[in-house]
Amino acid sequence: MSADKNFALHTQLDADTHKIGTMELCQVLLMNNSVWPWVILVPQRADVKEMHDLSEQDQLLLMKEMMAISTALKKITGADKMNVANLGNMVSQLHIHIIGRLNMDPAWPNPVWGTPHKRPWTPTDLKQFTANLKNEVKGLK
Amino acid sequence: MSADKNFALHTQLDADTHKIGTMELCQVLLMNNSVWPWVILVPQRADVKEMHDLSEQDQLLLMKEMMAISTALKKITGADKMNVANLGNMVSQLHIHIIGRLNMDPAWPNPVWGTPHKRPWTPTDLKQFTANLKNEVKGLK
Repeated sequence: MSADKNFALHTQLDADTHKIGTMELCQVLLMNNSVWPWVILVPQRADVKEMHDLSEQDQLLLMKEMMAISTALKKITGADKMNVANLGNMVSQLHIHIIGRLNMDPAWPNPVWGTPHKRPWTPTDLKQFTANLKNEVKGLK
Repeated sequence: MSADKNFALHTQLDADTHKIGTMELCQVLLMNNSVWPWVILVPQRADVKEMHDLSEQDQLLLMKEMMAISTALKKITGADKMNVANLGNMVSQLHIHIIGRLNMDPAWPNPVWGTPHKRPWTPTDLKQFTANLKNEVKGLK
């Protein structure tokens, strides 16, 4: 399985994230906000807005990739709870947030979207985080 | 597949929702807030907090049930966007929100959690909504 030839990452997602790599279905992005370990998965399918618009095969593949990232993020960061969500109210291109939460993080227990807390990744921390994630997630290239 | 014998619905979820029915894996609940069509799926597995803690078989079943509800809610309500999310920062028992959003709803484009907008379902509307959902979702009893 490969990316749709008509797939192109939404400009807003591109602007807000660092590209970590790709899996079989999804691009794996890291939100440029190190306050949280905050990965975004974007299925490489053109013109898809809802998870349920994916083919059943892609839905199951998406679940596997979400769970691989969620498991790895929890292990790497020691998160108390993973938040896994497709909202897409602002950017319509289908994308799934996978966010590690600590019960002492600045937004806890509320959701992270729309909070003012922001700290861009430093190059050193980004490199280390990327290496850790790739080391944990088989199939993330 | 059936519910774990040790599964019991969290008291907070029980207090906040109407029970619609069950699917193969999940209890299907309706948040008692008719401002949004807001379904909650609760996998009938004891002591599970993260989606990735479910067995792989249950993860794929959960995806199928989430997508069946999402498809039906969008069709019934004409929602502009579905929000599908596992947060669980406040109630730790694994549960997934499936919420139909309109681009003119009172929280749009922000998430619905924590907003003050609340209107309990009337018995008549609840009965109609439940019938519509059961009519659309094969496997919801």
